[in-house]
Amino acid sequence: MASEFEIIARHFTRPARSAVLGVGDDCAIVRVPAELAMALTTDLLAEGTHFLPGADPLRLGHKALAVNLSDLAAMGADPRWFTLALALPDADEAWIAEFARGMFALADRFGVELVGGDTTRGPRMISITACGTLPPALALRRDGAASGEDVWLSGATGDAALGLAHLRGAARLSAAAARHCLARLETPLPLVELGRRLRGIAASAIDVSDGLVADLGHIAERSGVAIELWLGQIPRSKALAECADAALVRDCLLGGGDDYELAFTAPAARRAAILALAAELGLPLARIGRVRDGAPGVTVLDDAGAPVTARSGYDHFGA
Amino acid sequence: MASEFEIIARHFTRPARSAVLGVGDDCAIVRVPAELAMALTTDLLAEGTHFLPGADPLRLGHKALAVNLSDLAAMGADPRWFTLALALPDADEAWIAEFARGMFALADRFGVELVGGDTTRGPRMISITACGTLPPALALRRDGAASGEDVWLSGATGDAALGLAHLRGAARLSAAAARHCLARLETPLPLVELGRRLRGIAASAIDVSDGLVADLGHIAERSGVAIELWLGQIPRSKALAECADAALVRDCLLGGGDDYELAFTAPAARRAAILALAAELGLPLARIGRVRDGAPGVTVLDDAGAPVTARSGYDHFGA
Repeated sequence: MASEFEIIARHFTRPARSAVLGVGDDCAIVRVPAELAMALTTDLLAEGTHFLPGADPLRLGHKALAVNLSDLAAMGADPRWFTLALALPDADEAWIAEFARGMFALADRFGVELVGGDTTRGPRMISITACGTLPPALALRRDGAASGEDVWLSGATGDAALGLAHLRGAARLSAAAARHCLARLETPLPLVELGRRLRGIAASAIDVSDGLVADLGHIAERSGVAIELWLGQIPRSKALAECADAALVRDCLLGGGDDYELAFTAPAARRAAILALAAELGLPLARIGRVRDGAPGVTVLDDAGAPVTARSGYDHFGA
Repeated sequence: MASEFEIIARHFTRPARSAVLGVGDDCAIVRVPAELAMALTTDLLAEGTHFLPGADPLRLGHKALAVNLSDLAAMGADPRWFTLALALPDADEAWIAEFARGMFALADRFGVELVGGDTTRGPRMISITACGTLPPALALRRDGAASGEDVWLSGATGDAALGLAHLRGAARLSAAAARHCLARLETPLPLVELGRRLRGIAASAIDVSDGLVADLGHIAERSGVAIELWLGQIPRSKALAECADAALVRDCLLGGGDDYELAFTAPAARRAAILALAAELGLPLARIGRVRDGAPGVTVLDDAGAPVTARSGYDHFGA
């Protein structure tokens, strides 16, 4: 006899499209074209850590998938399939229907297919594992940066962190700025097309989920290079430009996570190709620093060339 | 700066072996041989639902991976890679070291490689997504059963449930029987080799995680067939044979989950091949029923051919 929860889990069951076998068996089965490799990524969102109790399920469904698609984008992979592990305190069908609606709307936008999962009773938590395909030699790895390359950033960082500061009462935003920042925080759009198009252009890439300095720090560490950022060249959104609290603005720009922009490095010879891509996609791509020889790490310089002290990024477990 | 938690997450980082790219980038990258497909499965274990607070981390690490490998076995897939999403209330390094030890011991036994994951603070919960490879035409699907086939079971079901009853004070076992049943409950061994060898022999298969009747019910439903089980033919372990509570024994046999045996169907023409496989693997395989035309469902018959009423299986969300 099906339990209430099994019935609700069926909200997530749709006919298999590109999968050989989808939801409903011991495993899903998918095929990867012979010339491609599979990229795999897992993210876990826990209530109280990544979202507040009472968070809107529609936006949560969107975001839980978006953060995984952003990891695929940062690798240059085409998103294909995902699995969902969901713990819920109760079998609230209205909540689940909204969560599924938000998740599937984003899935359909990028043609990515839910192929399996597990639901259980427990404290609210969402874990998605997403799979993409890519030509393995063109993967945008963190360890590909080399001295002399440019450092690039899509769009602008800091809006999500500014939105969070607004929710916490630490920033006062206009209604329009608050709307913009909260949308960035709650319904980020993974830069799938940008990631795919950077294959063969970027030497390394990462998505900015923990903060610009922290995430570029991962590239620096994995590549064994120093990265220099020019504070004055880092783009500021209208919301950040309007904010009078200079220290908050800098923390948001450099340390704010959850914007899911892409940061990447590329040889100077690719500047024209990158600017052409920016124009084609209608997506600002800014040159914000350079890769140097030196001890792995990130240094931020002000307009006078003096180092700036910054938070190292948002850290769920830091002191 | 690395947080305490990041440092602990490094307990899970080992050099990539068969993966193109392992732990430490936005995604892992793996290659699937052109003639094979990828099988994917996800399981979620939550404290309080699937394991008790204070559960031994070594055995929990084993079991969290084992249940996923069992799903791959039930599909006939060769286990290859997995990702781990782990929520923990605190950064208890001793706990994590033991958990990792149990998980990696099982992983090494089956040559399966951890390629990525995510750790966060939150109520203790473990979600693993495991990937295997298999020739897609030979997958052991739930929808492959046909009227006239035999129903087979590996080993014996019910020990894990009997162990749980013992822990709850609902059964009194000898010290030897308790040891046996608790080992079955806490450190089940996924039947990877059996699953792989049943490719081309079994018509359908499932692992017994929810209970024999419930899990064969999934095959019946997906295949559109009726399944008849012969209670007298279902093997009983020594521990169950010693138990005087006949109703408990029947509930354990038919409704006990967590043994991770494989139940499967096969044409009568494959009986000799199956018995030869049992002898080769040193693993009992018993013919316990048959597949019939009829409304999808499972009927259990006693030795006189009369229907037996049974629990439908263990259900985390049932009434």
